[in-house]
Amino acid sequence: MSAWVLPDHIADVLPSEARHIEELRRELLDTARGYGCELVMPPLLEHLESLLTGTGETLDLQTFKLVDQLSGRLLGLRADSTPQVARIDAHLLNRQGVTRLCYCGPVLHTRPDRPHATREPLQFGAEIYGHAGLEADLEALSLALDCLRATQVSDFTVDMADARIVHALLEGGATDPHRLADIHAALAAKDAGTLAGLTRHLPAGSRAALGQLLDLYGGPEVLDQAERVLPDVPAIRQALASMRWLAGHLQDTRISFDLADLRGYAYYTGVRFGIYVPGVSDALVRGGRYDEVGAVFGRNRPAVGFSLDLKELVGVASKRPLKAAIRAPWGEQADLRAAVGRLRAQGETVVCVLPGHESVVDEFHCDRELVRQDSDWVVRGL
Amino acid sequence: MSAWVLPDHIADVLPSEARHIEELRRELLDTARGYGCELVMPPLLEHLESLLTGTGETLDLQTFKLVDQLSGRLLGLRADSTPQVARIDAHLLNRQGVTRLCYCGPVLHTRPDRPHATREPLQFGAEIYGHAGLEADLEALSLALDCLRATQVSDFTVDMADARIVHALLEGGATDPHRLADIHAALAAKDAGTLAGLTRHLPAGSRAALGQLLDLYGGPEVLDQAERVLPDVPAIRQALASMRWLAGHLQDTRISFDLADLRGYAYYTGVRFGIYVPGVSDALVRGGRYDEVGAVFGRNRPAVGFSLDLKELVGVASKRPLKAAIRAPWGEQADLRAAVGRLRAQGETVVCVLPGHESVVDEFHCDRELVRQDSDWVVRGL
Repeated sequence: MSAWVLPDHIADVLPSEARHIEELRRELLDTARGYGCELVMPPLLEHLESLLTGTGETLDLQTFKLVDQLSGRLLGLRADSTPQVARIDAHLLNRQGVTRLCYCGPVLHTRPDRPHATREPLQFGAEIYGHAGLEADLEALSLALDCLRATQVSDFTVDMADARIVHALLEGGATDPHRLADIHAALAAKDAGTLAGLTRHLPAGSRAALGQLLDLYGGPEVLDQAERVLPDVPAIRQALASMRWLAGHLQDTRISFDLADLRGYAYYTGVRFGIYVPGVSDALVRGGRYDEVGAVFGRNRPAVGFSLDLKELVGVASKRPLKAAIRAPWGEQADLRAAVGRLRAQGETVVCVLPGHESVVDEFHCDRELVRQDSDWVVRGL
Repeated sequence: MSAWVLPDHIADVLPSEARHIEELRRELLDTARGYGCELVMPPLLEHLESLLTGTGETLDLQTFKLVDQLSGRLLGLRADSTPQVARIDAHLLNRQGVTRLCYCGPVLHTRPDRPHATREPLQFGAEIYGHAGLEADLEALSLALDCLRATQVSDFTVDMADARIVHALLEGGATDPHRLADIHAALAAKDAGTLAGLTRHLPAGSRAALGQLLDLYGGPEVLDQAERVLPDVPAIRQALASMRWLAGHLQDTRISFDLADLRGYAYYTGVRFGIYVPGVSDALVRGGRYDEVGAVFGRNRPAVGFSLDLKELVGVASKRPLKAAIRAPWGEQADLRAAVGRLRAQGETVVCVLPGHESVVDEFHCDRELVRQDSDWVVRGL
């Protein structure tokens, strides 16, 4: 008799938290809509090759697989919505100009990302397609920050990196995907010894510069330092200038840099950012530029965007009080039913006490009650 | 190169429809909240035995199965949220009084329910636990109707039946579950020949009454007819009185009866209803009483509720116009950015035209633009 036991890292969301998540969800979607983002709803299930082709390959281990009884083909449960939204931009909408899209829905992971992470995040995100200039990066970043502000999260730090720096340093030395992943991991962990071993085959200049990256984290001075110690090649110059431009446009925001940090999704091709808040060890929001994400769907459009997990956000966003309800008696009288209907139409919650339950404490907090006064039904405080 | 092809009966929801679904979703959740329903979010994945035990058994064929890599156990993707919400009421909340819960989220089906049905409905529903009286049935039905009215669906018919009638007629003759399902199907299809064959083993009175059921459909006169032709046993008397009472409280609603129709979920134990609208062949809303749904989770509470598929509802709800947006130039000036921010804070959608995209027709309909006038930024019509 343990039918109520849920799988590990899978949980119900109970009323008080669910209400808060729903409020946050609306605030996020409304903020994105204020920027002109159109909502899309990609499906939970797709053919595995659609979910994992191209830029989605690293999601393979995170993706639950099952067999489609209709076709006998292998399906996957989405572990990340970004490749799906790129597919919609590339194939379904197929527009020439700038397209802004947003989405909000569950994704599923075979294994938790971190020790206490859920395997069913509620992913919200926004993407801007079709503009290669930094203005789109800035808009994505501004939208991410406005989303946090809308949900009353204000104590945050934006941490920036740029995928082009590591790419440029690894160029020349042919590196297979597995070694590449190991190098990224060593960089993220700031593990100089492992990094030195993994980059033995690279030219001495690149090896030294990769080693330097481990120390390039901190405030704005990091960019100056990087200009001095990193090779003076176009890709790196451009990456540093991009970060400097973006940081310059976010004057009232705390910004840090960690040029070695390329954790998270592997599909970034330019500036990438993480937004950190106190109380969450990992980034609450992850985003950046990933221009090649639509290539596998036949249209290689510039793309920049971000995503977050609402189940994580709800843990740090300050709770708003529940609007208290009105208690009403149950009755068949037309005037009582009309009064209840009117209050509900005004946005009030009216809880009817069903016969026989008058003595039971109500779980929905009621601070007023509907009572008969002469020939009228009136609301009075409790 | 067919990475964009989706599985059969699985589809993306594109911007105009997604926006409408989101509007409907909020209207439904707000209407349910007006009745005091608390939102819960059960997980997409559960141990298979939790999803399929007890009253969920008939969902077996509809449920996608996969293996949990963490535990090696079999998981199911929920095909219906009702058993999950019953689990939450029974085990997690475990309250003594009346509990009203609602939910809204995707469910997945291995096979479409009907020829053109989606395999990923977006299920919204509400449930009232803890009250065995008809007042709860009436409240569930009223809430369902108010939900439709809130989404501006008004041309509907409530069709009623009661599971107790068929149960009572089949009592006495031991009937195995497979034959029972066949009998229900024959009743729903009004197939007198098949029904007669399947009920050969029953007492003559019951057989005759089951045959009579096939003709008991239509307006309120059906209840009078039923009283004359069906056996005068307490369960049937009670069922007919229940339907009469409920219909009497829905004066301004078109009501029909089809006493042989027990299609849909198998867990009903009392009055059940379907709400039909023009343009949808099957019931748009299904609901009723299912008192035994929480038994397998250790608490057999009275329960009544309903559910609908938002992807079906969006096809019949009248579309509201998209609030048009304001076009703004892109610029680094602080006063322009402040003006854009203010408009967005007022709930406006402001689409910034990114540099180089001035000539591209905007997909988001803009009826106004933000322009500089002397030293101010002002909105003017387009």
